[in-house]
Amino acid sequence: MLEKTVRMNALFDFYQPLLTLKQQKYMELYFLDDYSLGEISEEFDVSRQAVYDNIKRTGVMLEEYEDKLELYRKYQLRMAYYRQLRNNEEEHDSPSPGLIKTIQALEKLEEEGTT
Amino acid sequence: MLEKTVRMNALFDFYQPLLTLKQQKYMELYFLDDYSLGEISEEFDVSRQAVYDNIKRTGVMLEEYEDKLELYRKYQLRMAYYRQLRNNEEEHDSPSPGLIKTIQALEKLEEEGTT
Repeated sequence: MLEKTVRMNALFDFYQPLLTLKQQKYMELYFLDDYSLGEISEEFDVSRQAVYDNIKRTGVMLEEYEDKLELYRKYQLRMAYYRQLRNNEEEHDSPSPGLIKTIQALEKLEEEGTT
Repeated sequence: MLEKTVRMNALFDFYQPLLTLKQQKYMELYFLDDYSLGEISEEFDVSRQAVYDNIKRTGVMLEEYEDKLELYRKYQLRMAYYRQLRNNEEEHDSPSPGLIKTIQALEKLEEEGTT
């Protein structure tokens, strides 16, 4: 369950703008703020089943987006390559500050996608 | 018009999997294979106006996806940073083959998104 939550959080970061506002709200409360289904259903005055169905459907949508665009997979690969560049540079006799700065800029750009 | 075609090609590369098969086919013929609206309408036995409307709507959708996910903007930024890393390394007294290899792997990963 924890693994699933981590993955849903990650996919939600990448594909959130493609969801409806209601989907975004439910996902945020359930996966980020750790609300229970019952609490969300009270908050929105809908049945617990409706909340459950919506969140489940949204989870399927997020996996479908990932199948199509692979933003999370590529993000993980890039971050691993950036670490490799850093390590490689730190082994160098005279590490280049310019290179480290560029790697930092690349890492920052990745974080934009995961706010 | 050329600039618009270049941009549509680029956005199409990134968001193609989110389009319907018909949208994909029309965009491909019009922007990649340089078919005219008339030729596409003959090919699919629909009116020229229907093809025009579909392509126009798809163009709007692609821009909306880019507004939301910014894949093309981020791709361009990353490619510029990779060039910077390369240049930086080539100015080095002893360029590192490991670093160049990692940059190549990063560039290859970007190309996956634009097939």
